Amino acid sequence: MSEAAVAEYQLSTEPKLKAFVAAVLERCGVAPEQAAVVADVLVAADLRGIESHGVARLESYYVGRIRSGHLRPKPEYRIVRETATTVLYDADNGLGHPVAKMTMEKVIEKARAHGSAFGAVRNSNHFGIAGYYAMMALPHDMIGMASTNSVKYGTATFGRDVLLGTNPLAFAIPAGNEPDFVLDFATTTVPKGKLEVYKRKGKPLLDGWAIDEQGYMTQDPDAALRGALLPLGGFGTDGGGHKGYGLGLLVDILCGVLSGGAYGPDLPVVTDVREGAISHWFGAFRIDGFRDVAAFKADMDRELRSFKDSLKAPGQDRIWVAGEPEFEKTAHHRATGVPVHAKVWEGLQKLGGELGIAFDLAR
Amino acid sequence: MSEAAVAEYQLSTEPKLKAFVAAVLERCGVAPEQAAVVADVLVAADLRGIESHGVARLESYYVGRIRSGHLRPKPEYRIVRETATTVLYDADNGLGHPVAKMTMEKVIEKARAHGSAFGAVRNSNHFGIAGYYAMMALPHDMIGMASTNSVKYGTATFGRDVLLGTNPLAFAIPAGNEPDFVLDFATTTVPKGKLEVYKRKGKPLLDGWAIDEQGYMTQDPDAALRGALLPLGGFGTDGGGHKGYGLGLLVDILCGVLSGGAYGPDLPVVTDVREGAISHWFGAFRIDGFRDVAAFKADMDRELRSFKDSLKAPGQDRIWVAGEPEFEKTAHHRATGVPVHAKVWEGLQKLGGELGIAFDLAR
Repeated sequence: MSEAAVAEYQLSTEPKLKAFVAAVLERCGVAPEQAAVVADVLVAADLRGIESHGVARLESYYVGRIRSGHLRPKPEYRIVRETATTVLYDADNGLGHPVAKMTMEKVIEKARAHGSAFGAVRNSNHFGIAGYYAMMALPHDMIGMASTNSVKYGTATFGRDVLLGTNPLAFAIPAGNEPDFVLDFATTTVPKGKLEVYKRKGKPLLDGWAIDEQGYMTQDPDAALRGALLPLGGFGTDGGGHKGYGLGLLVDILCGVLSGGAYGPDLPVVTDVREGAISHWFGAFRIDGFRDVAAFKADMDRELRSFKDSLKAPGQDRIWVAGEPEFEKTAHHRATGVPVHAKVWEGLQKLGGELGIAFDLAR
Repeated sequence: MSEAAVAEYQLSTEPKLKAFVAAVLERCGVAPEQAAVVADVLVAADLRGIESHGVARLESYYVGRIRSGHLRPKPEYRIVRETATTVLYDADNGLGHPVAKMTMEKVIEKARAHGSAFGAVRNSNHFGIAGYYAMMALPHDMIGMASTNSVKYGTATFGRDVLLGTNPLAFAIPAGNEPDFVLDFATTTVPKGKLEVYKRKGKPLLDGWAIDEQGYMTQDPDAALRGALLPLGGFGTDGGGHKGYGLGLLVDILCGVLSGGAYGPDLPVVTDVREGAISHWFGAFRIDGFRDVAAFKADMDRELRSFKDSLKAPGQDRIWVAGEPEFEKTAHHRATGVPVHAKVWEGLQKLGGELGIAFDLAR
């Protein structure tokens, strides 16, 4: 991290951050075991270097909505439908993380018994990073999948309406000695936060990121923030934008339509607090339904290494595989401290003061 | 179709093309019921407007390999491993289409009994369009998935080695009155055939499509054909190229590593005939594990319509959803004839002559 960057950040530790997040949520009426799950998911994001989905959201999203009465701190998570290998939960407009974890646990339990399983959740809220739930399959020697729809920022190929969330898809596949393969990506080219970073820095956006309100591609962050994000693959179809649009719509269907939750036209934009409008989707299957796990993992190591050891493009000294940057950041942050942006740090301090929780986050 | 385009094409019919393809394969020693499956898959591609995966491949890939002894016309497809909801086939270096259909049928049968299922095939060959197998789930009110790895044309983000196939992913989801949602896309930005079309037309490639042998992005089709295709999202990470690379690697793992087949370093490049080096992956789950099917389909119609009816970007008069262009092309080609490129037509005529099969393809 550069010196300038260091000055912007404070360092905390994983246990301190988790304890603080859990205490805040408990003070807001969330049951201790559920508060602990939210803390685990949020701090996992900070550990993995995905700040936008970490403790930065504690006040702005979760606590803010509980305080304003738009999110139920004590929901009744309930199973709506269940078969041997499928399960659907209704989250009762509660926090997304506990019900997502609960659903993925059920999916894993069913996959252990029968080989494969899927789950979905409706009437939920933002659940943090999708990768967290896909990764729950790893210690069970399963391949895990997770997804969620989201507040809308994105548009369709050839369109200009704001219709799609950043709609991430995550897949987790265990390796042996190599870091596990964890692919967790937004189906828009960039997240909305990237437009805000470029606005702050006064930098022009790159082509393929966003359109203005009229539907023209724009390099102006302000115009883009009033417009819409473009799907992975960019504007039109030349760069495959229709594929990213298709993936975004796939996620909205798997999450929103399949669960009987909100989808497409009924999803909120960011300025519109709509209760329980988010839905999730999960899947898992056993590797030993196909091969012995040890042989599979040995081949995974060889596969991942063959990419990492392949010839580099000019000016590049490293080829990564999905999940590896986050794996290394987690180890680094555990060893040297978890960075929290100075503004977020101040916000947490203020929140602690308001709720009467001792603020002792410094490493 | 423009006049120039019409002159390049001959028109046939679905039944005539299927009968011809099947007759050719039978003459090459393929069992009639398996030849019929290959014919059905190839002609489905032509109907859907995906020429590159249709009858154009009959001689160049399938018959060519059977004749040269590199593909077994009478393979022993066998189940290697099976559980209640998973199945693995070995294709014995036979044609990919029959074993892929067989596997997806098993997956659907298992999903009907248990709610969800997955399947994989190793030691196989090119299986045509992935969407064909995903779409097999539709009449069963299931969501279907299909994928395959392929001959290598693509590179990793920051790399310059040829390591990845075009590795398509397909998802099929039934709608009610609207055409079903069928997303079937290569995880490279463009297929290799697109470079060849641009070379033929003397047009420069677009940014984000391909690199030369040194790893620099290139607009020169010849340099690109000696280089590698870029993943969906393009060069580097600015446009999300690491996401397309992750998806391509995901497919190679789900197909090649999971099945115990060839993967990554062991996959052939196009000039290298390697036997049985292709692997496939399939999945399906029941919609009524989550919701009543009629309610789901009604919501699918509303979801798809809401995208199609949304505001258009300047100069655009239509927004599509995945599967709709191919649905309309199929209807059009059934009504007006299936176009076959003049060169392919000549090739089929020659092949018919060599094998003593009457050539009566004209509409």
